[in-house]
Amino acid sequence: MATHPHTPDELQARAASLDDADPLSALRDRFLLPEGVIYLDGNSLGALPAAVPSVVADVVRRQWGTDLIRSWNEHSWWQAPLRVGDAIGRLIGAAPGQTVAGDSTSVQLFNALTAACRLRPGRPLLLTDPAHFPTDQYIADSVARVLGLRVCRVPVRELPRFLAGEGDRVAVAGYSPVDYRTGELYDMAATTRAVQQAGALMLWDLCHAAGALPVGLDATGVDLAVGCGYKYLSGGPGAPAFLYVAERHHAAFDHPLTGWNGHAEPFALDGHYIPAEGIARARIGTPPMLSLLALEAALTAFDGVDMGRVRAKNLSLTGFLMDCADTLLDGFGFTVVTPRDPGRRGSQAALRHPEAYALVQALGTHGVIGDMRAPDLMRFGVNSLYVSHRDVLTAMLRLREIVSAGEHRQESFRRRTAVT
Amino acid sequence: MATHPHTPDELQARAASLDDADPLSALRDRFLLPEGVIYLDGNSLGALPAAVPSVVADVVRRQWGTDLIRSWNEHSWWQAPLRVGDAIGRLIGAAPGQTVAGDSTSVQLFNALTAACRLRPGRPLLLTDPAHFPTDQYIADSVARVLGLRVCRVPVRELPRFLAGEGDRVAVAGYSPVDYRTGELYDMAATTRAVQQAGALMLWDLCHAAGALPVGLDATGVDLAVGCGYKYLSGGPGAPAFLYVAERHHAAFDHPLTGWNGHAEPFALDGHYIPAEGIARARIGTPPMLSLLALEAALTAFDGVDMGRVRAKNLSLTGFLMDCADTLLDGFGFTVVTPRDPGRRGSQAALRHPEAYALVQALGTHGVIGDMRAPDLMRFGVNSLYVSHRDVLTAMLRLREIVSAGEHRQESFRRRTAVT
Repeated sequence: MATHPHTPDELQARAASLDDADPLSALRDRFLLPEGVIYLDGNSLGALPAAVPSVVADVVRRQWGTDLIRSWNEHSWWQAPLRVGDAIGRLIGAAPGQTVAGDSTSVQLFNALTAACRLRPGRPLLLTDPAHFPTDQYIADSVARVLGLRVCRVPVRELPRFLAGEGDRVAVAGYSPVDYRTGELYDMAATTRAVQQAGALMLWDLCHAAGALPVGLDATGVDLAVGCGYKYLSGGPGAPAFLYVAERHHAAFDHPLTGWNGHAEPFALDGHYIPAEGIARARIGTPPMLSLLALEAALTAFDGVDMGRVRAKNLSLTGFLMDCADTLLDGFGFTVVTPRDPGRRGSQAALRHPEAYALVQALGTHGVIGDMRAPDLMRFGVNSLYVSHRDVLTAMLRLREIVSAGEHRQESFRRRTAVT
Repeated sequence: MATHPHTPDELQARAASLDDADPLSALRDRFLLPEGVIYLDGNSLGALPAAVPSVVADVVRRQWGTDLIRSWNEHSWWQAPLRVGDAIGRLIGAAPGQTVAGDSTSVQLFNALTAACRLRPGRPLLLTDPAHFPTDQYIADSVARVLGLRVCRVPVRELPRFLAGEGDRVAVAGYSPVDYRTGELYDMAATTRAVQQAGALMLWDLCHAAGALPVGLDATGVDLAVGCGYKYLSGGPGAPAFLYVAERHHAAFDHPLTGWNGHAEPFALDGHYIPAEGIARARIGTPPMLSLLALEAALTAFDGVDMGRVRAKNLSLTGFLMDCADTLLDGFGFTVVTPRDPGRRGSQAALRHPEAYALVQALGTHGVIGDMRAPDLMRFGVNSLYVSHRDVLTAMLRLREIVSAGEHRQESFRRRTAVT
């Protein structure tokens, strides 16, 4: 094992050696990243896969423009939600026929949580994490309201204790394996087991996991999962989300968003809803094809890629980032908040600093793109497909330059824009 | 007034004279239609506006690829749902700030119908038309189920009588101004008045009206409306839908799809939902930007276009189509089912024929694209922005050639493909 590097030179040597040994380094060519940019915000919006522009241009000019309405058949647009769903399924450990792509995570959550509660009648509680991404909490509240149930906000760590007392009253528990702020990773298998042992259903929000961790939905016996297409899957801004429903629940999956695309015979145009067999019933309305087919093209960046290697590399990258922070940022007021234990972190590292906002702005002007979450967290997401250890080191070196020069205290970096 | 033409030559002369006098004829150049194709299916998927390809390429390569996450601010992605909503609003008579673009019609219907029922507590009935497009009926059934209410299927024509007896029990009536099969147009103003006089809310599904008729939502005092972006608005396959909520209902608009984009302070990332002011609360999750910005570019095809002229032209086109059918298809078993009265038809003409499916297939091989609805309706939608009277005549001449030669009876035209 390498000794812990303590100087910038030692860190350079370490980065070079890690990158040289990286079996995934060639995947960088599958993305079109701008010159001179180090992109550590793929946990918010993934970079552009090289396969996307020509596919989108073809979808627009030839499929839509020339072949027009016939493309629903001729270019298999109609099958895209299930086809793209299966392509995502391969990355999250889901056998074919259990994943559908479409709509937003919020919409998928509404459908999935409502159906979950209907699968567990007589159980009045939905559980969510008070630290969960807001939309998960809002939608849980809304589902509880329409069904006359109640939401309990239970931190994932306290789930076992809560379930011991109230487990038989819980219909569904909706959690994320990764804390979107700190990058902390929770034990999916143990949590799933605890929830299911209480007789409840387990729903995972994989927004910060799909494409970064070998989630293993089937192997873990998860009931339901949702996630977005635009973070580690790099499907483009607002790319369609996905919904996974374990096959054993298909026949009884009874969802509220009964759009015509999910009908058993959509083109019979009958006035009464009969759900399609299998995951196809979770299709809703006509999907946004440009965005959906961009996502499909983006997923080819994973062709032949082993998710175990993706996982090993992002652990190496985040571990190295924290080493760099220890060495380079010592004394500048930063705290590493992401767990050092590889078993307890996802694919991002977060640093706490009271001037986080200004620092992220200043970094941007030096070609290093991360993001922040109020009030004081800097987030650096690492996508194993296009981020290198050298990138990580350069980012931390620039951060040190900025903070040591006090550059981030310029007025222009402190002014907030509408969206951060 | 011109006399009714009775020969192909007279029809040719009539088409030429109508096209020559058409003030909208130059708009054809705003679309990229394939050579030799006559496209009469813009009521299903609108043709490709010329402005779209370069905008989409820019969104993919520069905005996503180069500017990455910063585009949410720098290219105003964040504002797009309201900006595109207002652009649609201009075409449907809605003052700014009442229309949002996003999601599918099915999802928007679920949000709008649920919110409508909550605005009329104590009223147990939702009304829909048994001839309404299926998804409207399915979603009404689903909303009724989650709220413990009941759906009554009342044909739009029978609404006044129904409301006279049961009006005070109705929460919301969801109808389409245009029958998607026959093209028949109903009286929006009278229907809205009747529903509102009963104390209920009026929701219009404008899928077959937006971009074709000067809908006049504000002037008519409509409460709610939804519609898709991919028919007469030509926003692309599965283009985002829209939702209109009259300003007077904003403060009390209480919808179930409480996604984080609709929060008053989305980036505060608070765990409890506080709806934004105005129509912004009806935003749900992160929108599919490629499809949404394609729709925005597509809408520029309407720049400077008077909806009164659009309406006058599509009435002329559908009227001429029926005249051509009378003259050219006489004796071949066709029945014109679209009303002759211009006040009673939308922007499509429908012909009934027992071999409708095979005829539409055969027409396609001759470059004329229409569609059909089971069991026996051929639909020809006319988009005033790119269809001419000559197109309509050519289509009917080719239909006559096919049916008189029996060409459609070839086996290949009778075999059904997956999607029709």
